[in-house]
Amino acid sequence: MSYIYKNPEYLLKFAREVAMVPQNELLRRKNDLQEKMQSQNMDGILLAQNMSMYYMSGTMHCQYVYVPADGETLGLVRRNMERAKKETAVSLAPMSGFSALPGVFQEFGFKSNRIGLELDVLPATTYLRMAKTLSNLELADASTLVREVRQVKSEYELKQLHEAARQVDALHKQIPQLLCEGKDELEFAADCEMTLRKLGHQGTARMRGFNQEMFYGHVLSGATGAASSFLDSPTGGVGVSTAAPQGAGRKNIAKGEPVTVDYGGIVNGYIVDQTRLYSIGHLPEILSNAFNVALLIQEELLRHLIPGSTGGQVYDTALAVATKYNLQEHFMGINDTQAKYVGHGVGLEFDEFPILAKGSPHILRENMVIALEPKFTFPGLGVVGLENTWQVTGDGAKKISITPDAHVVL
Amino acid sequence: MSYIYKNPEYLLKFAREVAMVPQNELLRRKNDLQEKMQSQNMDGILLAQNMSMYYMSGTMHCQYVYVPADGETLGLVRRNMERAKKETAVSLAPMSGFSALPGVFQEFGFKSNRIGLELDVLPATTYLRMAKTLSNLELADASTLVREVRQVKSEYELKQLHEAARQVDALHKQIPQLLCEGKDELEFAADCEMTLRKLGHQGTARMRGFNQEMFYGHVLSGATGAASSFLDSPTGGVGVSTAAPQGAGRKNIAKGEPVTVDYGGIVNGYIVDQTRLYSIGHLPEILSNAFNVALLIQEELLRHLIPGSTGGQVYDTALAVATKYNLQEHFMGINDTQAKYVGHGVGLEFDEFPILAKGSPHILRENMVIALEPKFTFPGLGVVGLENTWQVTGDGAKKISITPDAHVVL
Repeated sequence: MSYIYKNPEYLLKFAREVAMVPQNELLRRKNDLQEKMQSQNMDGILLAQNMSMYYMSGTMHCQYVYVPADGETLGLVRRNMERAKKETAVSLAPMSGFSALPGVFQEFGFKSNRIGLELDVLPATTYLRMAKTLSNLELADASTLVREVRQVKSEYELKQLHEAARQVDALHKQIPQLLCEGKDELEFAADCEMTLRKLGHQGTARMRGFNQEMFYGHVLSGATGAASSFLDSPTGGVGVSTAAPQGAGRKNIAKGEPVTVDYGGIVNGYIVDQTRLYSIGHLPEILSNAFNVALLIQEELLRHLIPGSTGGQVYDTALAVATKYNLQEHFMGINDTQAKYVGHGVGLEFDEFPILAKGSPHILRENMVIALEPKFTFPGLGVVGLENTWQVTGDGAKKISITPDAHVVL
Repeated sequence: MSYIYKNPEYLLKFAREVAMVPQNELLRRKNDLQEKMQSQNMDGILLAQNMSMYYMSGTMHCQYVYVPADGETLGLVRRNMERAKKETAVSLAPMSGFSALPGVFQEFGFKSNRIGLELDVLPATTYLRMAKTLSNLELADASTLVREVRQVKSEYELKQLHEAARQVDALHKQIPQLLCEGKDELEFAADCEMTLRKLGHQGTARMRGFNQEMFYGHVLSGATGAASSFLDSPTGGVGVSTAAPQGAGRKNIAKGEPVTVDYGGIVNGYIVDQTRLYSIGHLPEILSNAFNVALLIQEELLRHLIPGSTGGQVYDTALAVATKYNLQEHFMGINDTQAKYVGHGVGLEFDEFPILAKGSPHILRENMVIALEPKFTFPGLGVVGLENTWQVTGDGAKKISITPDAHVVL
């Protein structure tokens, strides 16, 4: 059969239609990582995790991405070179496995005595095999460097985040039509998911942490909304089974109970994390009061979301406000499932640096992007609170989310 | 404030409503794993990955699950003991981190000189810290054992799979109403996803492999459907951006092109993987002929889906049929993105054992559950083929999927 494809015009067309990560943006990222690795005496970092590689190369079609301490980023492609080439301007070379690495280093003239790896995510088997293959090199842990470099967002990244804020806001504009009494959580969640997806949401919601799972986020209502899950999060929910024990379940949404919609917007991979509170009819006073305290916490934290604050300080401030209103035992969960944080960095993944947690030494810097999520849990009643995504600036926090904060009573 | 929750009645109610994994099923699984580990001289296996722990304990609320070579499964819980207790009948003990493991082994009288770990998924950092903390133990790789034990499905598991087949079939019954000319892939995909979700689909679609990502599956149409992605799969698609480069994109669905719906059904965690072919109006002959060859490959493979066959033999048989019809260059992708397999085990994850790939030594046994997916890629035109989930029995393959195989012309 002669019908073999030689010149994929449709891929060229796709490449023109799909926004590529700009070349100068990839260059900036590389320079930032190089600066960090020089201070750690690394000769290069071999990236292996999807979002690390995408961040540095602009494509997900590399098997590894190598960033030398000095020189240009090199994408190593096992298959699909054609598509990788259409998506990125960084140099690409074919590679069938990491046993070829010493040859690659030699061919490209990379000095490589001490190499950084993402040991926080690299499977042990892969690491052990690499250590054997590259036994004449020193392998160091570059996980922190790799995560740190992504904290500060560029103009390009902020633009994606503003688009993501518009995407999730468009969902919230629809919610008064989607939410009604008697509908079960899962039906309501499915309608929200469909709405986001038609707005261009990628579906896949990424977390870097081992065993952390996320599907859009959490749509929760009433008493079952107060259930915490295996996830390190202030909210959980019962989910649809013991095999998927978080998020929406089959409980009917009733009058007078809190309904929280914690679904992010995602554009070109970039996530805006946002939660809004709804109810059909009014909430018990204990819950509406707590929601007002969440608003006060947010207001107070904005003064602390400035360059120089530490994640631990921001958390302590939030907890102090909760304690002032005697809500400390409900803050971010209850009992042994209380999450000891009030916010987290967000970008290509939901769990980026910095972490605004108890004792966190992460120092805020200009243009970090942070989701702040003061929430309160009342077993038997539900969860109230809100979440917005913010840009740290020298003039204080700048809001990226655009949906009004207020509790919406339908 | 006195409003602190002590006795979570709503969780008790939830536990009654949500199907628990039966106690005798957990016992069977433990016995199977113990048999395997005794042949490998392991004193126990410390499970750490979500689905491994869920499989062995029936809950996702353990941080580790320990299965001794001799004795009972023990779930180690960092937080949320209350919920864990509601979900499982296995013994549970609180634990704050793996540094407490030597104490746990002593307390429960577990002999522990040689311990198995899931090195294929355990992050290198965790492994290295464990090796330090447990430096007086020998740590072995139990990845293969853990994956092997899950290959053979029980009556309980087959029941979940039959439910999952009904779930995805209910979607396909709706598709004639959901699919129409001019709708874009993403809109159609969003409608399929909403339909599945309202039928109880958990959303989250799990794969064990590092960097493998899945969101429901692939809805693909026409030329862009022929694009392969980073995923080790016969199909890819362009997706919505370079950051999510697989599955449905913003291409309009047109008359006379193939539309494949490769979305699994998932019930209580168990996946039925299934693909069906649709088109609005008739397909070019080259495509409908190839679809008929896919049907012939499936028919031929059923004779080989018997205890004793190897994964490699099944793949070779499939390739031989494709070659007989001169379609080998289109089989499971093209050029360097051709996937060298025709099927895979399926259960709690999409990438379970056995693998029906070139050279695979995996030996089929009764009650293994396998997704067979003969597919053909035609650049510029699209993808055709089908996928069904099958149970291996002594009398030949038994179909779990219930949706008719035929190409549906709308």
